[in-house]
Amino acid sequence: MKRNLLLTALLAASVFTGAYAQEAVDQDMVNKIREEGLNHSQVMNTAFYLTDVSGPRLSGSPELRHAQEWAMGQLKTWGMSNVALEPWGKFGKGWDVQKNYAAITVPYYHAIIAIPKAWTPSTNGPIKTDVVLLKVDTVTDLDQYKGKLKGKIVIMDTKTTLAQGLKPDLTRYTDEELDKMAKAGPEQPRGPRPGNANNFIETRRRMMAMRTAVSTFLMDEGAALILSQARGTDGTVFTTNGASYAEDAKPVLPELETSGEDYLRIVRLLKGGISVQMEADIQTKFYTDDLQGYDVVAEIPGTDKKLKDQLVMLGGHFDSWHGGTGATDNAAGSAVMMEALRILKTIGFKPKRTIRLALWTSEEQGLFGSRNYVLNHFGDPKTMTLKPEQAKVSAYYNLDNGTGKIRGIYLQGNQAAGPIFQSWLAPFKDLGASTVTIGNTGGTDHLSFDAVGIPGFQFIQEPMDYNTRTHHSNQDTYDRLSADDLKQAATIIASFVYNTSQRTDMIPRKELPKPPPAAGN
Amino acid sequence: MKRNLLLTALLAASVFTGAYAQEAVDQDMVNKIREEGLNHSQVMNTAFYLTDVSGPRLSGSPELRHAQEWAMGQLKTWGMSNVALEPWGKFGKGWDVQKNYAAITVPYYHAIIAIPKAWTPSTNGPIKTDVVLLKVDTVTDLDQYKGKLKGKIVIMDTKTTLAQGLKPDLTRYTDEELDKMAKAGPEQPRGPRPGNANNFIETRRRMMAMRTAVSTFLMDEGAALILSQARGTDGTVFTTNGASYAEDAKPVLPELETSGEDYLRIVRLLKGGISVQMEADIQTKFYTDDLQGYDVVAEIPGTDKKLKDQLVMLGGHFDSWHGGTGATDNAAGSAVMMEALRILKTIGFKPKRTIRLALWTSEEQGLFGSRNYVLNHFGDPKTMTLKPEQAKVSAYYNLDNGTGKIRGIYLQGNQAAGPIFQSWLAPFKDLGASTVTIGNTGGTDHLSFDAVGIPGFQFIQEPMDYNTRTHHSNQDTYDRLSADDLKQAATIIASFVYNTSQRTDMIPRKELPKPPPAAGN
Repeated sequence: MKRNLLLTALLAASVFTGAYAQEAVDQDMVNKIREEGLNHSQVMNTAFYLTDVSGPRLSGSPELRHAQEWAMGQLKTWGMSNVALEPWGKFGKGWDVQKNYAAITVPYYHAIIAIPKAWTPSTNGPIKTDVVLLKVDTVTDLDQYKGKLKGKIVIMDTKTTLAQGLKPDLTRYTDEELDKMAKAGPEQPRGPRPGNANNFIETRRRMMAMRTAVSTFLMDEGAALILSQARGTDGTVFTTNGASYAEDAKPVLPELETSGEDYLRIVRLLKGGISVQMEADIQTKFYTDDLQGYDVVAEIPGTDKKLKDQLVMLGGHFDSWHGGTGATDNAAGSAVMMEALRILKTIGFKPKRTIRLALWTSEEQGLFGSRNYVLNHFGDPKTMTLKPEQAKVSAYYNLDNGTGKIRGIYLQGNQAAGPIFQSWLAPFKDLGASTVTIGNTGGTDHLSFDAVGIPGFQFIQEPMDYNTRTHHSNQDTYDRLSADDLKQAATIIASFVYNTSQRTDMIPRKELPKPPPAAGN
Repeated sequence: MKRNLLLTALLAASVFTGAYAQEAVDQDMVNKIREEGLNHSQVMNTAFYLTDVSGPRLSGSPELRHAQEWAMGQLKTWGMSNVALEPWGKFGKGWDVQKNYAAITVPYYHAIIAIPKAWTPSTNGPIKTDVVLLKVDTVTDLDQYKGKLKGKIVIMDTKTTLAQGLKPDLTRYTDEELDKMAKAGPEQPRGPRPGNANNFIETRRRMMAMRTAVSTFLMDEGAALILSQARGTDGTVFTTNGASYAEDAKPVLPELETSGEDYLRIVRLLKGGISVQMEADIQTKFYTDDLQGYDVVAEIPGTDKKLKDQLVMLGGHFDSWHGGTGATDNAAGSAVMMEALRILKTIGFKPKRTIRLALWTSEEQGLFGSRNYVLNHFGDPKTMTLKPEQAKVSAYYNLDNGTGKIRGIYLQGNQAAGPIFQSWLAPFKDLGASTVTIGNTGGTDHLSFDAVGIPGFQFIQEPMDYNTRTHHSNQDTYDRLSADDLKQAATIIASFVYNTSQRTDMIPRKELPKPPPAAGN
């Protein structure tokens, strides 16, 4: 019934009008939050320590731990309670880069732009050798290279050409785009893939099998180093995972993710019959003394007798990839969430419900930090076995889409939350945040909460150059952070957290998700 | 009188209409040129050898000589006459990079993107040391660093922030832009700079003096390496000259042009009180066995008794900067000009006038190759003392603005040439080339001809990503070359050269330039 009413409302142009009255917003408190957040911000200083000072925060690395220690110190300095490094379970090996040098030496000298793939090993000291072009369409094509690759650097043939810069790297949402999001209906479950799904799966399966066969072959033949082509242009290198971080991961070869321009130059030379020699010295280090994963948590304790056991949570993932310093992914979100907490503490706010910050790790490997936290505290999405604490979390707010300011919020299909959030956004219309969309957004830690029926939300952020330039790239550095955008985001989130902590009722929940079919067996 | 008539014509929308009849275009020949140029092009193969295979073609370097040898061999293979490496006078030392490695090692490891400035020396082997931030507003500020810089890496404070990617890197001209160029009037001599010109000059003078004082100080103090901030973002590094190539150049320190992101990260860390250590190994090599500069020349000899002593010249500079492989600056122009010659030879064309190609060097240091060629063959622009051959060059055509196709031609103030070029462009309207502008374009080798009264022209080319991404940068590589654009350019230039060689009269000339005042003393 309620659902039908809301569905009807969704058909109107202005979706949630008429429902505001119930959500009184304390304008005085909003003013205090705005004053602290916009005019006395520390968000850029926080971001500086998470990026420039700490370096890349790859899961399990000493650089991540450095950033965690700094964050805990800072949170304590700000007066937060229960600041802790909470283990969430076993992750695997830490890893970082200790030396990264590679250059073409024949036909002339040229140092290349390249990044070791995460969790790949070192070269056998400095090496200097020929580069061999591998042209392989089927597994049997490998035979011709038997006995020819020992100690060589190997590159794969490709038909790739580089994208041209026909569009700006950096964009912000237009009013039309936001309007479309606001008017969108509930998402329909996706039907089967159009065209021949079996063909697609079969192609993918064959490709994966091929890749494994090539890897095994190169390992057996004793190649010295693999060059793979990175996504990106202009010196921008998007990095990926190159090997397993598992304690018992099977050995792989050193592998360099090579900038498009440098990769294609080498391929063109070899295809043109011109010999290429290179020198390289890649030293990476594995850390196995502590295989645990940890989240940083901190609280502003609740003060209302009845409500202080209830929680408002906010967070974002704290780990990053290793090519840059993970500034937009996700020092930005981490710094904003820490700043939101600082704002509330600094203005002397005593919440009714307890406010808990969590800075997750191993998000990049599969949301492990938040998933395991949820498993440890709230319930198991595989069986939908819930713990008592699950019932006590009003909402979880997440930020993880770069440096862009907040333009609104994704309801993640939770229609009942719409009118509430509309009211809470109203005082921030002048800062550009007013869109509430029923739509989902995926790929990050709010999903871990959503999976066990806790309202988990991610904000709509300006796209900026997240998808074009920074997301997982060597260019994800402090330079990409927009101070004004981050201040705005921290201010609005502080206000959301404030409202959630004081609201008479908890945020309404969607129907509890059904456990996936496998769990029924 | 003629001038006034043309000026009147310029005021009309279609500038040169009515004057076409005099310039009959041989459509059959145009068709042959188009067929060879568009459907049997070798321009990308030529560009491959000039870029990927030869490497950067810095003046005086072995890589430049390699490319010159290859070009001569190719021109001979194509059947050109009088192919030669013609010395144009003394240039100075050759130089190239033999090793280029630098990384931050404290507070964590990070290999930086940086390029040695041209003609700077090697580090004293591999070095590993602290980075010192120099905050210097006046010369006396240097005193505080006395005795503190020996063996250190030095970086200068800056207030720079990096540009955001709000516009596309790559653009093509719109019809409106071309229309504006076509309707432009003759350029007026520039008046005095608005505002206080003396202030500007004084500021500049003081800045230069400051720079010299800092350099001398760092040299005297025995710093190990200077980091300077390169223009560019996203891993793109625009390179500049770091020292003199002169035989007797005074010694300078090793200097690394560092990507904006890496430079600013180090500056932020040091300003934030965080120690930074780096390791670097820069090895550069000077070549002093031959200090001469050389141009490559080649001809298709004229066959008309009366006209064969007259010349049609075409060319572009062959040298480049050292960060990339000088693909758009100016392997593109060089390959197109070689291709234009190849097209004409391949279709069996026997010109009336002699066609001469020249591939200049040391354009990047001051148009030296073409200026000296002009001085040796045609006359001295300082005194306007002309040699007999000056009277025999009908026109010189140049290409040096990247990979973009030809959209028309700059008349360089030569109004009488306008109607002629309009007629010659007419058959290429379908290829997007039809704009004739009275305007000038500067900065390259046609100026050397223009300076002694020989009609020298440069074509209007699509901007592409020349100014945003490739011009003098480490990203000026083969990947940036647009095959279709280069084929079009070679085809149109072959046609221009054909028409110039067959035209009854030579291309009309502007009034002879007056020698600069200094020459009168």
